[in-house]
Parts: sequence; structure tokens; C-alpha cells
Amino acid sequence: MKELEIKLRRNVLSKNEETAAHLRKIFAEHRLLVINMLSSPGSGKTTLLEKTAHALAPGLGIAVIVGDLQTERDAVRIRNAGVPATQINTDRGCHLSARMVADALPQVDLDAADVLFIENVGNLVCPASYDLGEDFAVVLASVPEGDDKPAKYPTAMLKADLIVLNKIDLAPYTNFSFERFRLDVQKIKPTLDVLEVSCTEEVGLQNWFEWLKTKVAQKQALH
Amino acid sequence: MKELEIKLRRNVLSKNEETAAHLRKIFAEHRLLVINMLSSPGSGKTTLLEKTAHALAPGLGIAVIVGDLQTERDAVRIRNAGVPATQINTDRGCHLSARMVADALPQVDLDAADVLFIENVGNLVCPASYDLGEDFAVVLASVPEGDDKPAKYPTAMLKADLIVLNKIDLAPYTNFSFERFRLDVQKIKPTLDVLEVSCTEEVGLQNWFEWLKTKVAQKQALH
Repeated sequence: MKELEIKLRRNVLSKNEETAAHLRKIFAEHRLLVINMLSSPGSGKTTLLEKTAHALAPGLGIAVIVGDLQTERDAVRIRNAGVPATQINTDRGCHLSARMVADALPQVDLDAADVLFIENVGNLVCPASYDLGEDFAVVLASVPEGDDKPAKYPTAMLKADLIVLNKIDLAPYTNFSFERFRLDVQKIKPTLDVLEVSCTEEVGLQNWFEWLKTKVAQKQALH
Repeated sequence: MKELEIKLRRNVLSKNEETAAHLRKIFAEHRLLVINMLSSPGSGKTTLLEKTAHALAPGLGIAVIVGDLQTERDAVRIRNAGVPATQINTDRGCHLSARMVADALPQVDLDAADVLFIENVGNLVCPASYDLGEDFAVVLASVPEGDDKPAKYPTAMLKADLIVLNKIDLAPYTNFSFERFRLDVQKIKPTLDVLEVSCTEEVGLQNWFEWLKTKVAQKQALH
């Protein structure tokens, strides 16, 4: 039984790789930068996208695919920020797969977009194993979750190309240590950058916007 | 492929049910109250257990099994609070299974304990599908995660017998609405109680201790 389970898991992941490779080709044809956003529930993924939309759209073409077990709430919030959003409801599903993204893709105007954000299901474990054909995985952490999260969720950290550490405005009311957080990140992946931001207080967002614009420009220069 | 996947998942879950039933029998023989604690990463499960240990042990016999992908940190914290703790590292595993608990059980002194807490992997999705033979599932939510979590994670809410809403001391610095939170909980499961606490400020913990002591007394009166 255990063997069959492992075999099937391998099969599911290799099928996912195939679909992700197919997605990557489509994204490349459209010179579209794709960012897979991973985090715990409530780290502020949707708020970061709202702020990004308000600051950069429509000068920068932004499209969003949002994964949630239930509700259309996040897609509605993002649409209210002036950006098209497609909601995928996974029901009990703990992550987005490349197949789910491929199925949602006909609803996304790939030619109008410079960057596609895929807001994954709020879960620091399972989404880390599924390639969605993205250029970059961004892990959003948040101060009230505690400084021990990198050490406790190394799979997500290893997948990450960038960490955005949100809610730094709450640091004075917690025992969060920026040093402990950074030390643990460094131990796991020394090349991994951490951008400190507060979405609600609009602190540090400029660094995130710059990172994003640089990556879009690099992707568009590739052809 | 999809069919095989569904069949295997059903098989895994039914195997888990079997092992959970076996655990439930062992727990009953020891008149041991067992609580499965579910939450997002960083909601404060370990801190709640530390506070519970400091307030109630050794008058109340407490034992803890802790699930994490990596590190022994939570078990160390709980031991430092004077309570025996067994750490299960799941590596990439997104939840505890009844089998993992059964395998860890020989390390737990069941006769010395009145209550066994099983601190699940920080994940609001997958652990909700796995029965661990517990008497009660307690979902720990926290204010900075936002008031939309019940609506977005209904599987965990449906499994829950009690919600402990932690970090209420941070409410003044966020846009969290206790009313929206409670309304969503009511829509999903009208019988579900919410206890508001702040572990760091030690607010509302008395209600949690009372709930716990009542459940322990009820379990011990069963025989």
C-alpha cells in the first residue's frame, strides 16, 4: 500500500511537471512574467496584490489567478483594485496544481498582461511541491506568525526566490526578532533575499515594486 | 489515473479511520482526554500549551505530541514548561496521521496524563481530513490572520469542536472585526463556540482552562 502511494505521488508530481513545462512555454510565448505566491493563511497575499495594483496598474499590465478552498472574496477584492482576477476554488484541495492553472488560463487575457500573479492556497506545506510554470516563487511571511517559520517550513523556503516579510508594523507588539528570522533563512538558503514591508502602513513597498519591475523588464528583454 | 488517485485517497482515509478507532480504544482505557489542535502556522498553539502547562500542571497531568515538518523547537519549549513532549517530524508531510500518533504513543506515559494534546502540523487544510482518535478538535485562530479565515477554511471549522481566537491584544492595530468572524463561524457551524484569548497578555485564558477541566472531568466520569 505504502509503495503504491509513493509510486502514485511520484506519478502525480511528474504529470504536474509536464503540465508546468507546457505552461512555461505558453508564458514565454507571451513574454509574461509569472509569480507563484505562497504563504500561511492570512499573511497578506491579497493585500499585497491590492497595493501592487493600485501603485502600478494600468501602466503595468497585471492579471491574477487566486486559489482558495471556498469563496470568491479574494478575487472580488483584487477586481475592486482594478485588476482582472480569476478565482479557482479547490474545495478540500490544499494546493494549486499546474492542471488547475492550465484550466483557468482561457479566462486570462495573456496579451494584456505583463505579469501574472498566481496567489496559491494559504498553506506553507503542500504548494511548495507543485511547480506552476512560474518564473519566481515568492513566499510571503508575516511578523505575527513568529520568527521561527523559516526553520519550521524549510521546503517553502528552499522553493522561494524571494521572501516578502509583511506586517512589520506589528513588531513592537510581539517578540519577533528580525535577526533570528534572517539567520534561519540564511542557514537554509544563503542567497535568499528578505524584503521587509508593511502593506497597511505602506512601508517598504517601493523595494517590492522595484524588484517586480526589474523582473518584468528582464523577462520582456529575453526575446 | 484520476480514478486510481481517488480510490487510493479513500483507502488511505479508511485505513486512517481504522487506526484512529484503535487509538480511541486505548485512550478510553486510560480515561485520557485527547485534544487535536489545528491551526495555521504561527497562531500560537505552542504558546497556548505553555500557558496551560504553567497554570494547570502538575495538578492536571498533561502530555503533548507535537507535529512539525522540521525542528524539535516546539517540543523543547513545552518541556521547558514542565510537561513531557514527544516531537514527530513529518519532513514534507502536511498533517499528522493516526499511524504517526500510534507510533509515537510508546513514548507517552498514558497513565500519568489526564489530557493528551496533539499539536498538529501548522496547516488549516490537510489535518482537517485526518481523525487522530481525539475527543475534541480545537482550532486555534489568531486576530492578525484576519476575520475571513472561517469562511475560507470551512473544512477545519466543520471539524472543530471549539475555536480559540488568540492574539486579541493585536486587534487595535488591525482591521479585524470580531462580528464578521463570529457571523461567518455561525453560518458554517451554529453550535461552534469561540473563546477569545491573548496568550501573551494572559487575557481570557481562564475560560479555556475551565473548558478543559470540565472536559477532563467528563471523560474521567465515563467509567
